[in-house]
Amino acid sequence: MTKKSDKVRRGSPSIKSIHICSRLPASTSRSDFHRRSLLIYDRRLTEGRPKLRAWIQLFPLRYGVDAGEQLKDLARYPLHIQKILSKWNRGGLDRNSHLVALGGGSVGDFVAFTASILMRGVALTLIPTTWLAALDSSHGGKTALNVGGMKNQLGTFYPASKVIIAKELLIRSATKLQFDHSQDALGELFKISLIDGDLFEHIARGPSLRSSDELLWLTLKRAIEAKYRIVDQDPFELRGVRQILNLGHTFGHVIEAHYGWQHGRSVGAGLVFALKWSLHRKILKNPDFNRIETMMRQHEFWIEPPQRPIPQGKALKLITVDKKKIGSRRLRFVFLKKPGAAFIKEIPFDEMIREGVRQRWIR
Amino acid sequence: MTKKSDKVRRGSPSIKSIHICSRLPASTSRSDFHRRSLLIYDRRLTEGRPKLRAWIQLFPLRYGVDAGEQLKDLARYPLHIQKILSKWNRGGLDRNSHLVALGGGSVGDFVAFTASILMRGVALTLIPTTWLAALDSSHGGKTALNVGGMKNQLGTFYPASKVIIAKELLIRSATKLQFDHSQDALGELFKISLIDGDLFEHIARGPSLRSSDELLWLTLKRAIEAKYRIVDQDPFELRGVRQILNLGHTFGHVIEAHYGWQHGRSVGAGLVFALKWSLHRKILKNPDFNRIETMMRQHEFWIEPPQRPIPQGKALKLITVDKKKIGSRRLRFVFLKKPGAAFIKEIPFDEMIREGVRQRWIR
Repeated sequence: MTKKSDKVRRGSPSIKSIHICSRLPASTSRSDFHRRSLLIYDRRLTEGRPKLRAWIQLFPLRYGVDAGEQLKDLARYPLHIQKILSKWNRGGLDRNSHLVALGGGSVGDFVAFTASILMRGVALTLIPTTWLAALDSSHGGKTALNVGGMKNQLGTFYPASKVIIAKELLIRSATKLQFDHSQDALGELFKISLIDGDLFEHIARGPSLRSSDELLWLTLKRAIEAKYRIVDQDPFELRGVRQILNLGHTFGHVIEAHYGWQHGRSVGAGLVFALKWSLHRKILKNPDFNRIETMMRQHEFWIEPPQRPIPQGKALKLITVDKKKIGSRRLRFVFLKKPGAAFIKEIPFDEMIREGVRQRWIR
Repeated sequence: MTKKSDKVRRGSPSIKSIHICSRLPASTSRSDFHRRSLLIYDRRLTEGRPKLRAWIQLFPLRYGVDAGEQLKDLARYPLHIQKILSKWNRGGLDRNSHLVALGGGSVGDFVAFTASILMRGVALTLIPTTWLAALDSSHGGKTALNVGGMKNQLGTFYPASKVIIAKELLIRSATKLQFDHSQDALGELFKISLIDGDLFEHIARGPSLRSSDELLWLTLKRAIEAKYRIVDQDPFELRGVRQILNLGHTFGHVIEAHYGWQHGRSVGAGLVFALKWSLHRKILKNPDFNRIETMMRQHEFWIEPPQRPIPQGKALKLITVDKKKIGSRRLRFVFLKKPGAAFIKEIPFDEMIREGVRQRWIR
């Protein structure tokens, strides 16, 4: 699969390409790509994986980091940049050299942001190691840092020159951790399938007893293509088209920030919130709602509010810092008419609060 | 004068425009522009200028900074961003609101960088208060931060939505400081005139006894237009066209870093270096060289090496961190064939060092 979008700005004029493969490409440390790159990788990935460790060591220039949201903290960023720049300059790299990210979403956000500002932009290769990164965050130019606990307040639009998705990095032994990771990606998979329609039918009509790993691997290519169909219409979010991709996210972010749940589960809960609100407003019809609920329940992904609702004041504060807000009282919310037909509507903050109370997410 | 470049990415889809006027536009704090903006300004500008102070206070949201290179230091950046974000959010601003910069080059670099990464890009208005910023750095999307004393290692391409150039901010009483500031801009003025040719003839044939303030005000519009003719061919420096604008800068940066001279004077010295090298290589002919020297001497801007040359090792180290280097041994140098005909040539570091020794800049 090759995706190209000429309008997209990037640090080097290379063709943007996405490779889906079983294994990481075999390589030698003498390859031009290795000599002209600085690899930034999640240190924990190498634990118990000597082959991956050897692959990483093929890069003469590398920088190991601890993945997670704290990696994206602006307060710690100056120290990281100093180390990265020092390796970059000592290694004789220049504006045509590559920053390569090996890791999940936080590593991708951090490395992509760095690539976008280093010498006003250097080439970027992303190698995602989580389903969420492979399916969603590696596509569309996301880059992000956090400021004082507020997520993704800083960022740019900076599509990678190359994304390499290797199955061997994504499907591992069924540990608890791994289960959580693939669950985490289901939120984005169901979101994009509700936006795309065709993908929804594909999943809803497929066999129901697939593992989430299986489901994700079999739908990966379609889900990525569906995302690019939207992103390519509006690479820099100038026309609002991309805001469709926030389906489930506006309230999902409130849930994520308050309960500290993982992103995918929060988005799942946000999707259920958006579906119930769409039904209540008679935008979404009962039969469609039921088909979607059935599909999501089959994958144990129909997430209801927990026992302790979010206090109103806290919910309002969390909404206020959302990037999608318009001024200080309104935001753009994505409703669903039917699978394949989502739309954006401006609503006042307090309407969302009232709906949160009705659904027992807010007290 | 209105300049437009549709290909250029910006945070808001507003039209890019440049206004040259005598006075700052009269305004009231109730204007939409003021209510939807955060002004970041050079605190020292208000000293002894009550009118400007009152103008600044029309902005309900404002943040005063100390101008200078230390403002651009990445180590201090997290603190600035926290304060800016806090004002931004408390003031109910969103992605369509404006960051407005009132100050010289360092304030412009800092604010433009911030606008380019705040919420993935917000609208940007620049109001330059130095000749150098009015003539050069406010045009073409420059944004920059410094890392550990190394200038402009981080940055993006982010053209302002609007540039307002007010004569009253630029021409002040003839203090020593002001003299230095207009001198500082002559380097860039002569550079762009050597690249453009027509502008060179305009200056060379004009009356010779004009003050630098007068010269700058009379050539400002032409000089800005000449710069955009190059920038618009290659907004993101993907094709190398813009590197022509580095005429005088490659060696100028070495001089600036070693001697701590002001940017404009360093560029002036770098121009003389490039002219002498072009002559020595028989690229530039003697009559053209002499005309250029005469013009620059008339404005007391023909800068020769000082008594203490730069040690070779230091010079080499300073070249190594230059963004225009190619790998670890070569860089792109801009030579001049005649006024209006500059061109780029790849040269090894040590050739530039040898020429530096010949010209007695390096020992």
